Amino acid sequence: MPLKTRIDAALMAAIREAGADPAPQQLGTALEYAVTPGGARIRPTICLSVAMACGDKHPMMADAAAAALEIMHCASLVHDDLPSFDDADTRRGKPSVHKAYNEPLAVLTGDSLIILAFETIARAGHPDPKAALDLIMTLTKRSGMPFGICAGQGWESEKEVNLSAYHLAKTGALFMAATEMGAIAGGQDPEPWVELGAHIGEAFQVADDLRDALMDETTLGKPVGQDDLHGRPNAVTELGVDGATRRLRNILSGAISSIPSCPGEASLALMVQATAEKIIPEPARHLGLNPTVPGE
Amino acid sequence: MPLKTRIDAALMAAIREAGADPAPQQLGTALEYAVTPGGARIRPTICLSVAMACGDKHPMMADAAAAALEIMHCASLVHDDLPSFDDADTRRGKPSVHKAYNEPLAVLTGDSLIILAFETIARAGHPDPKAALDLIMTLTKRSGMPFGICAGQGWESEKEVNLSAYHLAKTGALFMAATEMGAIAGGQDPEPWVELGAHIGEAFQVADDLRDALMDETTLGKPVGQDDLHGRPNAVTELGVDGATRRLRNILSGAISSIPSCPGEASLALMVQATAEKIIPEPARHLGLNPTVPGE
Repeated sequence: MPLKTRIDAALMAAIREAGADPAPQQLGTALEYAVTPGGARIRPTICLSVAMACGDKHPMMADAAAAALEIMHCASLVHDDLPSFDDADTRRGKPSVHKAYNEPLAVLTGDSLIILAFETIARAGHPDPKAALDLIMTLTKRSGMPFGICAGQGWESEKEVNLSAYHLAKTGALFMAATEMGAIAGGQDPEPWVELGAHIGEAFQVADDLRDALMDETTLGKPVGQDDLHGRPNAVTELGVDGATRRLRNILSGAISSIPSCPGEASLALMVQATAEKIIPEPARHLGLNPTVPGE
Repeated sequence: MPLKTRIDAALMAAIREAGADPAPQQLGTALEYAVTPGGARIRPTICLSVAMACGDKHPMMADAAAAALEIMHCASLVHDDLPSFDDADTRRGKPSVHKAYNEPLAVLTGDSLIILAFETIARAGHPDPKAALDLIMTLTKRSGMPFGICAGQGWESEKEVNLSAYHLAKTGALFMAATEMGAIAGGQDPEPWVELGAHIGEAFQVADDLRDALMDETTLGKPVGQDDLHGRPNAVTELGVDGATRRLRNILSGAISSIPSCPGEASLALMVQATAEKIIPEPARHLGLNPTVPGE
C-alpha cells in the first residue's frame, strides 16, 4: 500500500472517531477542516518510511504514530494562525480555522487535535503497550515544554532568545519525533535516529526561508514575509538565496549520511533524496549545485 | 502521607520538569502560575481516594493520574478564561493567565499543560504499561472530542444543544475520569466507577450554580453571573436556591450509594460525605435538609 494511502486512512479514521455522534457539529467538522486537504504530509511520511526501513514490526502502531504526528502538526498550525499569534487569514490556500469558523472554535480545534494525537496512539497500542508508551513519551517531549513546538513558540515571547534551543524546538522537534517514532514503531531503539530528524528539520527551516523569499502569497497559500514581520532569524537574510540553497543541499547530504544501519537503509536514503528535490523551491533548483568550498 | 501532600508533590514535580532549562522563561513560569495556588484540588483528591479504596496497587501511577487530571483541569481554565471565551480577568483570586502574561502565552500555557498531562502519566507508566495506556485512553476520552471537556465547550457554539451530552461533557467528564483513573491505578476495572464520577460531576454543577447565585465576585475570585450572560441552563434558575440545594443533597446520597464494593468502601463514603459538606455554599447549608418528598 502506498504510504499516502496508509497515512490518509489512519488520519481519517482518527478524525471520524473524534467527530462521531454526539459530537457538537461545528467543532466536529472543524477537526476535519483543519487536517484536510493535506500539505505534503511530510512528517508522517518520514515516520512511516523509517518504520518500514526498520522492519515495520507493528504496522498499525506505525500508522497511528504517523497520524498522531500529522494531527499534532495541524493543531499547531491552527493555534499559530490565531489573531494573537500570526493572525493568518489563510492556510493551505483556504481560510484559516478561526476565519472559517470563529476564534473559540479554533482554540478548541487545536486543543481537541492535541488530545486526539495521544488518543490515536493509545488506541492502537495494545499489541505492545510499552512501545506505545514510548511513542507517547516521544510525542509529548517533542510537542510540549521545554523541548517541543510549544517551547518553540514560547521563545518568540522572550526578549533574550536561546537561538539553538529555539530552532530545535520550533522546527526540529516534530521531525525528530518523526524519525524517533518511526524507529519505535519499527521495533528499534529511537536514539540513533534523532540526528536524521534534526537534519531534516533544519533543511525544512531553510527551505521555508527560501520559499518565503521567492514565492508570492497566492502560490504559497499563506501570508509571506512573516519572519521579517516578527523579527525571526532567516537563512536567506543571512546567506542570500544562493548561499541558503547551498546550505540546504549540504544539510540534506548530512541527513543521508546520518541514516543508521538498518534493513531498509538504501530505500530510505532514496526517499530523503526525493524529498530534498521536492522541498527546494522551483526558482532555486538550479542554485547551490557547486561542491561545497572546504571550510565554508 | 496526606492526600494533599501526594497531589502537590506529583503536580509540582511535573511542572518543574516542564519548566526546566532550556525552557523559555515566561512560558515556564506561566505553567506554574496556572496551577498554583490550587483550588480544592477536588478531581485529584477523588482520583487518589478511589485508588486507595481499590487497594492502591500502583501508588506512583495513582499520583501521576491525579496530577494529570488537575493539570488538564487547569489547562481548560486557562483557555476558558481567554477573551474569545469567558473573557475573565480573574481566576482563583488573581489575574487570569492572559491578563498576567498575554494572550499568546495563555494559549501556549493551555497547550503545554494538555501535553504535560499525558507526559506525566506516560513517565510514571513503566511498572504497568498496559494500565498506563488505559489511563491515557480514559483521559483522552474525557477531555477531547466527542465526549470530553473540549466537546462540552464546543456545544456552547451550537444553535441546537444536546443538553445531556453537553452537561456530561462539560462538567461530568473530568469527574468520571477521576473515578475511572483512580480505579485503573488502583488495579480495578474502571467501568463500575463511572456512575460515582457522573454523580459527583452533577453535584458540582449544581453547587457552582448555587455559588454563582449566592456569592459575590470578590469571595468567588472569578466573575459571577456567567451562565446568565452566556445563556447556559442553571439549577437555581430552574429550582430556586432551596430546590437546588435539596437536589444537590439528593445527588450526593445517590453518589454514596453508587460506590462499588471495594476494600476501602466505607472511608470513601466518608470522603464523599465530607466533600458534600464543603461544596454546599455556606449561605445554603441550612437548606434542603428535609427528607425528599417521594415522587419529587
